[in-house]
Amino acid sequence: MTQRFSTMTRHLGSSAVRDILKVTQGKDILSLAGGLPAEAFFPVAAIREAYDRALSGGGTALQYGLTEGFLPLRERLCEQMAADGCRVQPDEMLMTTGSQQSIDLIARIFLDPEDVILVEAPTYLSALQVFQSYQAVPVAVETDEHGMLPDDLEAKLLRHHPKFVYVIPTFSNPGGNVWSLERRNAVVELCRKHGVLIFEDDPYGKVKFNPDVNFPSLYSIDQQYGDNGNVIYTSTFSKTVAPGVRSGWVMADASIIRMAAKAKQASDLHSSLIDQRALHELLGFFDLQGHIRTVSAEYYARMVKMTSLMQDRKWEGVSWIEPQGGMFLWVQMPEHVKADVLLQHAVREGVAFVPGQVFYSDGSGYNRMRVNFTHTDPHLLPEAIERMDRAFRSYAAAAVSV
Amino acid sequence: MTQRFSTMTRHLGSSAVRDILKVTQGKDILSLAGGLPAEAFFPVAAIREAYDRALSGGGTALQYGLTEGFLPLRERLCEQMAADGCRVQPDEMLMTTGSQQSIDLIARIFLDPEDVILVEAPTYLSALQVFQSYQAVPVAVETDEHGMLPDDLEAKLLRHHPKFVYVIPTFSNPGGNVWSLERRNAVVELCRKHGVLIFEDDPYGKVKFNPDVNFPSLYSIDQQYGDNGNVIYTSTFSKTVAPGVRSGWVMADASIIRMAAKAKQASDLHSSLIDQRALHELLGFFDLQGHIRTVSAEYYARMVKMTSLMQDRKWEGVSWIEPQGGMFLWVQMPEHVKADVLLQHAVREGVAFVPGQVFYSDGSGYNRMRVNFTHTDPHLLPEAIERMDRAFRSYAAAAVSV
Repeated sequence: MTQRFSTMTRHLGSSAVRDILKVTQGKDILSLAGGLPAEAFFPVAAIREAYDRALSGGGTALQYGLTEGFLPLRERLCEQMAADGCRVQPDEMLMTTGSQQSIDLIARIFLDPEDVILVEAPTYLSALQVFQSYQAVPVAVETDEHGMLPDDLEAKLLRHHPKFVYVIPTFSNPGGNVWSLERRNAVVELCRKHGVLIFEDDPYGKVKFNPDVNFPSLYSIDQQYGDNGNVIYTSTFSKTVAPGVRSGWVMADASIIRMAAKAKQASDLHSSLIDQRALHELLGFFDLQGHIRTVSAEYYARMVKMTSLMQDRKWEGVSWIEPQGGMFLWVQMPEHVKADVLLQHAVREGVAFVPGQVFYSDGSGYNRMRVNFTHTDPHLLPEAIERMDRAFRSYAAAAVSV
Repeated sequence: MTQRFSTMTRHLGSSAVRDILKVTQGKDILSLAGGLPAEAFFPVAAIREAYDRALSGGGTALQYGLTEGFLPLRERLCEQMAADGCRVQPDEMLMTTGSQQSIDLIARIFLDPEDVILVEAPTYLSALQVFQSYQAVPVAVETDEHGMLPDDLEAKLLRHHPKFVYVIPTFSNPGGNVWSLERRNAVVELCRKHGVLIFEDDPYGKVKFNPDVNFPSLYSIDQQYGDNGNVIYTSTFSKTVAPGVRSGWVMADASIIRMAAKAKQASDLHSSLIDQRALHELLGFFDLQGHIRTVSAEYYARMVKMTSLMQDRKWEGVSWIEPQGGMFLWVQMPEHVKADVLLQHAVREGVAFVPGQVFYSDGSGYNRMRVNFTHTDPHLLPEAIERMDRAFRSYAAAAVSV
């Protein structure tokens, strides 16, 4: 029987990363494709303790909860955000089950078919897919390693009057780069000038290799203007605690949060109260900031090990900018290299990555790849890079023989 | 600043129940409005043990998981469903964060603006709201206490060629009634004949007052036809374990499950792996069937207590059919009574219910109310009914004085 699916389903892409993982299943593959944090560093004992505490208070933790989220958790998060220079009240915050839900809810309350949104090039693949599932049209703003180019942004704000500008200014996915303060200020100012919202996605901001450097969020910069916020900010505990706690949050003007809560109520009523209470307990007794420093230092070590292994191979025309945080290395290859074809060679050799093209709304980036350095065990990295080396050679040989 | 929200937001209703609860907040109100299970009966110790076991295995429980859900949990659920006469494979099952998400995902993959769906009259308020948020048009099929009327169903299948027929055949919300076997067979047959899917919502099926009576699901009846399933079935652990575990599931033809999983991936990647693993542990060591029998017996006792208190009042023209399970009493009042006005009197007297109108897609049901008997502590029931009595009298006095 042919199903009469909705129009939206024609725009529901499958995740390229998950497709790659499916191909590799059951095979001896070292995957650098996923965006997974290192399991060995999950604070399992503390999380176990936190759940036990959350469930020690009787049945209340197991009842239906507020759509907006567990109030004591929101209050605590507001305090934490204040330490990052963001003034936010609990009614300007919505708990979600992670960044993916935050993105989906914001898309849901803002996007109609044909609506334009502006994005970086490259940008987060799954966000692009969500926006496209609502039949919105992502338009790429010219972007360099310091962020969006203000001139092009302004031209496109004027031309398209987009619903919002979606950005990952700190350790972006896949680029791994950090926007300069100048660009942050310029983008906030331009969007205010033209009355267009900014949607700031910040899953990696805490995972920084130099703990003493601070990158102010666009949300905090926007607050210097003093009136209602023009930035919707989302972050998650997936990279700082663990993905399994399925907890993220959105901060925005209260009118936006109210509407997003309505959409969340229709989507799933509310996030797991057990998970939220456990997280609240965890933030009470666990040194999360210290934990994040430990994890970030380990990720830095893994990134350095990987890039030095890659450097040793002296792949011709292959380069990257060393990231200052986050989870990804964004690799530039010579113009003649097609990353999707290279991937087929790589999978045969037992290694996987994500071809760059999927991170662009316009199909460019074919000669780039995203490589994750956080998940693969460091002692396996030499073997992974050895396999990448064989893939490059096999690709070159096949190209010559055509 | 006026937000440029999407068209969908104009169709995002707020939950009438939550609106009522907001009005009553901070006041001494005995609420019979919600659909909450009794907290005192949550198996807290077992759930605590289950989370502890789930988190004893190290970091794997905290990593990203499959969108479709934790496979061992799906396998166990398939076995349980087999005991209820449903043949289902893990690839025909999707774990969700509860019925609300199941309904949203099915709506998302099937409904375009102007699509018609057929529903019972009355039907589940929040489902109606989700369908309407996708700008679908719910059309009510004539319904009596035995289920949808086949003739009217067939006429409307022919006239509207709806995307699906949404039904709650067992202890419906708000009706509390059970479809007869004859009607179940007829509806399954008619929908097959006209190639229209059935969407069967079964959150309360296990909460039955006579444990020896079985009501076959439409899903199981449909399987007697032997080929691809024509029924999408959803249920939840919210009423049998606790809402806090945020776990439900959808069963359907694999092609539908694949598409629903794509939609779930865009919505929230996957459900909490911790919650799913804990649930899997719980089903392994906890006597859930025995627990459900205990809870159902308690709910039966509460229902009997409430209805006998109501009977003692001899409210003129007020009647109900005693439910065989579920959580609600569906009360018929005289034609001249407007339940929404009565509610204002009730709230002043310190008691709340849900006026019937909100459960209809066409605005009828104004002289009905839904009363929950599971959540209020039994020793408070006499006071609640006393307040209802005062509300009726105050309503009548106000009506006379007009």
